[in-house]
Amino acid sequence: MAIRFGLLGAGRIGKVHAKAVTNDAEAQLVAVADAFPAAAEAIAAQYGCAVRSIDEIAASADIDAVIICTPTDTHADLIELFVKAGKAVFCEKPIDLNLDRVKACLAVVRAEKGVLMVGFNRRFDPHFRAVRAQIDAGAVGAVEMVNITSRDPGLPPIEYLGRSGGIFRDMTIHDFDMARFMLGEEIDTVTARASVLVDPAVKTEGDFDSVNVILTTTSGKQCVISNSRRATYGYDQRVEVLGSGGMVAAENQRPVSIEVATAAGFTRPPLHDFFMTRYTEAYAAEIATFIAAVNGKGAASPSGEDGLMGLLLAECALKSVAENRTVSVSELA
Amino acid sequence: MAIRFGLLGAGRIGKVHAKAVTNDAEAQLVAVADAFPAAAEAIAAQYGCAVRSIDEIAASADIDAVIICTPTDTHADLIELFVKAGKAVFCEKPIDLNLDRVKACLAVVRAEKGVLMVGFNRRFDPHFRAVRAQIDAGAVGAVEMVNITSRDPGLPPIEYLGRSGGIFRDMTIHDFDMARFMLGEEIDTVTARASVLVDPAVKTEGDFDSVNVILTTTSGKQCVISNSRRATYGYDQRVEVLGSGGMVAAENQRPVSIEVATAAGFTRPPLHDFFMTRYTEAYAAEIATFIAAVNGKGAASPSGEDGLMGLLLAECALKSVAENRTVSVSELA
Amino acid sequence: MAIRFGLLGAGRIGKVHAKAVTNDAEAQLVAVADAFPAAAEAIAAQYGCAVRSIDEIAASADIDAVIICTPTDTHADLIELFVKAGKAVFCEKPIDLNLDRVKACLAVVRAEKGVLMVGFNRRFDPHFRAVRAQIDAGAVGAVEMVNITSRDPGLPPIEYLGRSGGIFRDMTIHDFDMARFMLGEEIDTVTARASVLVDPAVKTEGDFDSVNVILTTTSGKQCVISNSRRATYGYDQRVEVLGSGGMVAAENQRPVSIEVATAAGFTRPPLHDFFMTRYTEAYAAEIATFIAAVNGKGAASPSGEDGLMGLLLAECALKSVAENRTVSVSELA
Amino acid sequence: MAIRFGLLGAGRIGKVHAKAVTNDAEAQLVAVADAFPAAAEAIAAQYGCAVRSIDEIAASADIDAVIICTPTDTHADLIELFVKAGKAVFCEKPIDLNLDRVKACLAVVRAEKGVLMVGFNRRFDPHFRAVRAQIDAGAVGAVEMVNITSRDPGLPPIEYLGRSGGIFRDMTIHDFDMARFMLGEEIDTVTARASVLVDPAVKTEGDFDSVNVILTTTSGKQCVISNSRRATYGYDQRVEVLGSGGMVAAENQRPVSIEVATAAGFTRPPLHDFFMTRYTEAYAAEIATFIAAVNGKGAASPSGEDGLMGLLLAECALKSVAENRTVSVSELA
Repeated sequence: MAIRFGLLGAGRIGKVHAKAVTNDAEAQLVAVADAFPAAAEAIAAQYGCAVRSIDEIAASADIDAVIICTPTDTHADLIELFVKAGKAVFCEKPIDLNLDRVKACLAVVRAEKGVLMVGFNRRFDPHFRAVRAQIDAGAVGAVEMVNITSRDPGLPPIEYLGRSGGIFRDMTIHDFDMARFMLGEEIDTVTARASVLVDPAVKTEGDFDSVNVILTTTSGKQCVISNSRRATYGYDQRVEVLGSGGMVAAENQRPVSIEVATAAGFTRPPLHDFFMTRYTEAYAAEIATFIAAVNGKGAASPSGEDGLMGLLLAECALKSVAENRTVSVSELA
Repeated sequence: MAIRFGLLGAGRIGKVHAKAVTNDAEAQLVAVADAFPAAAEAIAAQYGCAVRSIDEIAASADIDAVIICTPTDTHADLIELFVKAGKAVFCEKPIDLNLDRVKACLAVVRAEKGVLMVGFNRRFDPHFRAVRAQIDAGAVGAVEMVNITSRDPGLPPIEYLGRSGGIFRDMTIHDFDMARFMLGEEIDTVTARASVLVDPAVKTEGDFDSVNVILTTTSGKQCVISNSRRATYGYDQRVEVLGSGGMVAAENQRPVSIEVATAAGFTRPPLHDFFMTRYTEAYAAEIATFIAAVNGKGAASPSGEDGLMGLLLAECALKSVAENRTVSVSELA
Repeated sequence: MAIRFGLLGAGRIGKVHAKAVTNDAEAQLVAVADAFPAAAEAIAAQYGCAVRSIDEIAASADIDAVIICTPTDTHADLIELFVKAGKAVFCEKPIDLNLDRVKACLAVVRAEKGVLMVGFNRRFDPHFRAVRAQIDAGAVGAVEMVNITSRDPGLPPIEYLGRSGGIFRDMTIHDFDMARFMLGEEIDTVTARASVLVDPAVKTEGDFDSVNVILTTTSGKQCVISNSRRATYGYDQRVEVLGSGGMVAAENQRPVSIEVATAAGFTRPPLHDFFMTRYTEAYAAEIATFIAAVNGKGAASPSGEDGLMGLLLAECALKSVAENRTVSVSELA
Repeated sequence: MAIRFGLLGAGRIGKVHAKAVTNDAEAQLVAVADAFPAAAEAIAAQYGCAVRSIDEIAASADIDAVIICTPTDTHADLIELFVKAGKAVFCEKPIDLNLDRVKACLAVVRAEKGVLMVGFNRRFDPHFRAVRAQIDAGAVGAVEMVNITSRDPGLPPIEYLGRSGGIFRDMTIHDFDMARFMLGEEIDTVTARASVLVDPAVKTEGDFDSVNVILTTTSGKQCVISNSRRATYGYDQRVEVLGSGGMVAAENQRPVSIEVATAAGFTRPPLHDFFMTRYTEAYAAEIATFIAAVNGKGAASPSGEDGLMGLLLAECALKSVAENRTVSVSELA
């Protein structure tokens, strides 16, 4: 059965999901809502769906599932509204920037036996999936160390930082999720160091732009996350897993892979300069996974609990930086 | 203005083009025709277009352009039919396997002042385009040598070979076109050597499976094409251009780019195993170019004459092999 | 003037240095000493030099400089003996495993105005030197982050671990020196996490086999060191430096660089499996630097103080692990 | 038994061989001869050997073997002189530029039952050897196609070209030998195309600077050689072998392997800019092979006949270019 979708939010990520739903033979885009009517109408025109209000979508009998791409501070309320309305929910990360609000929201989801999937898109990147598949196939033996390098092409607008929740909640949260995905074991301790090196204005926002985090699991596995808000050469997204039998790593991606050789050396083009082009395939694959899950094929994973755990690790990292010490996840859980 | 399309042929390449048309905001898929009604109906259902016969499409006032994906032996007739009907025509290569038939067909196109673009998809591959762009930007100086390595993952069914026109007309033709695209100068001589190494059955079909060709231009530039019908490691598609100032090369593409390191070494996955996944982006880009051309933006290139030239070079290569000598293109033109 | 050398210790690293001295036109190998006469005699025979006792070498008027390759616990005593004897001294790392002993030894060197160079060979690796040269040339702007991955091919014999001083003093010490070499600024804090993942026997020796360390400088620059005692794919030695303007990285080295492509993928051979083959060029270059320094051309660097600092950072790392917190270098300096 | 060597010619390649002999525990450099006494004396001083005339070396009872590094036009005479004197002979390529002279020389060697090895150094490059070893190990199945790309960093002095014998005898001859090494089967036909693209002055010397050659064997295996006298990015030396089971290729070599990433892309340094640094290891290995052969361990290969065959293929290539046709080796053999 084709799943009938309502899309909440017609911004740039909303457009990505609209296309993914349309291109999936198992799904149909029925309606779109946005605070800006023009944005909703553009999507409606392109894909032949209706424009409805959020409340209308919640009340629509011809809608099975929704995708929430609205601003972060509306996520938790909308999740609750739609699970109560009996719709399956896919929500962009994060559920909320406040740990207690996330917990309360997940309690509602559980009470309603709702279906909730959180948009940690990187788990669906074909290269990272292939790394995970190699681990599962035993290619590198028992996992021991994970090294994640994750650098943005450039600093977002300073005014954005203030409402981002800070680098750990906004940026590292993806890497925390990737760490859990690769380690295959829950995190026990968090040790973080943070600096402002890219732009002094970051400091005035109470944020950092350059951080390193060491995670450990109960069995002693370790993961290092290395983040910077600026990589002039593009969106640097690498994952490397060392096991007892070897290593598996995902290489960086670039839009074109040519090489020019001159007396100055051999030059390949920079990496992608934008997360949406870097993760094009991942966005389509995560929606396909959600559609399959709603159709009863497989789990709606990553779950709300995965979303909660990402935020929790971010809180631990902040505490570690503030107190110059290793923080046990159990202190904040 | 959105260009209104009729699709002739609903096979695997037809599906690719149907998707490209639908995803392009400047185009609309109006109708599809196929000898097998079920195939046409599947596309019609997925994209919301009509099923019509070929003659109906030729007579349709709501159709501006057609894409010809039918069997090779129908191409020339359909091109003539549709240019006479005043439709812009995109035709999969080759126009025909017979040189005279191609010339006659192009005469009709010229007489009708028709728009005809031929599907040499590789010109639209982002990596090869980037190579060409580097040449145009002067990154490697004056072009001197082009090296094209083009190997299929495996031999097609032997029964296909008989109607393929042989390796030069079926496979090398793409490389002849790439050579012209990169050299930026017409070919003057063709020298080819051919063997049967992959499967003795190829010989019984009067064909070859392993060939090398050297092309020269009037100014002495050279191009080497190296073909094999079998590369166990995947679809090997490399182009390298040496100029007075340096070299530019397009790397091979693989579906996932990870690396597994063990005591046995560092292993990356094989290349794409199929031309349709290798050239996904190229197919979309060539249709976008055709749409733009019909809309008056840019040329419908590669043209029918490009298609003719590819076939002509294949004929020269065959003659070169038969006579163990270098053949001037002027002998056959 | 050709520098006349005495070699103390005729083991495997002694042989490497004997060859480096002989191949350098500015140097001459005059005598060799070793507790095992046969080892000394083998070198003497191959390179045509004399066998003498350590005391004879100290008293030899025809010796300008010595290379100390004897067991670690003799280093500090020999350094003192030879600087007092007026010889220039090159000593393999570490000076001693005890911080106070190192300090006392360096006090003697200073009092005698002796020349002392410490064998942190990696600074002389042509690839790491090229990274440093790019930083100096401004290719990546201001240094912000250094990422060092350093993994041994396999665990040394467990009995060795007991006298090694532990992973931080034995293995990470090289990376601490590399961090200082690349950061170009002294380390302010050390935060380390350590596990036993490779072999439980490591734990019984009170040691670790898998560690991650974050270093920070006063200005907030960070360095991550990731160590494992086991990398089945060979000796993994990578350095990557992120700056305000870009990144520069040294690739891993392998004895042969071929690639085999089959249906199983593209495989390159493992890395070097031994530090002596990996750092062949570095060993020759460090001795050449020492010879030049003794000849008055350039500094005898890395110095005894560099050796001290490496050990100090190892102590800080141990304390960090023991106390689960960030340790300021000033606490132990 | 250590082989006692006489070195004929103390130029740059003579120095390379002097070092190789000295560093080999199985050999001893006894004497050196050169038309320029100062050149011979420099080597004698550095390695502690005698200076003698060529005739004295031929008459020396304490000399077992000679290395001929004198000008090309003396090679054949010296080979004859020394095999008659009962010395094993290693001779730099070519034996002579004249096919008949080579044949006559080899007849003398055979008559004297002399030991003659020819300096096709590339067979001893560790990367190319590893390619051959993979073929021998069956990693790629039956060899079908060999692709050799061989480009010099820059045109030699024009005055050199006149006495070089032309590009096929001077440069491609190495690739002809590599083709035979990799194909493992004798060449049956030669088809070549040649241009002057780098410098018009090359034409005035009756030479070419840009050539492509297709070789075939009796069983239909093919090899393509692509040569240019100019590659701004360094000494480009690649070999790729396609077999029924896969492909094996040797990558290019560079002095340092770092990568700098900025907004302009990812840049690695150029390749080696000189054949002597590119083939450092190969030169040492070929002399070691010769020493072993004189000591009765293994063959003195490549042999004089290998040298003859390289020249013969060059003659065939010249004829192919002149006559615009495929030439059978049997026409000239």
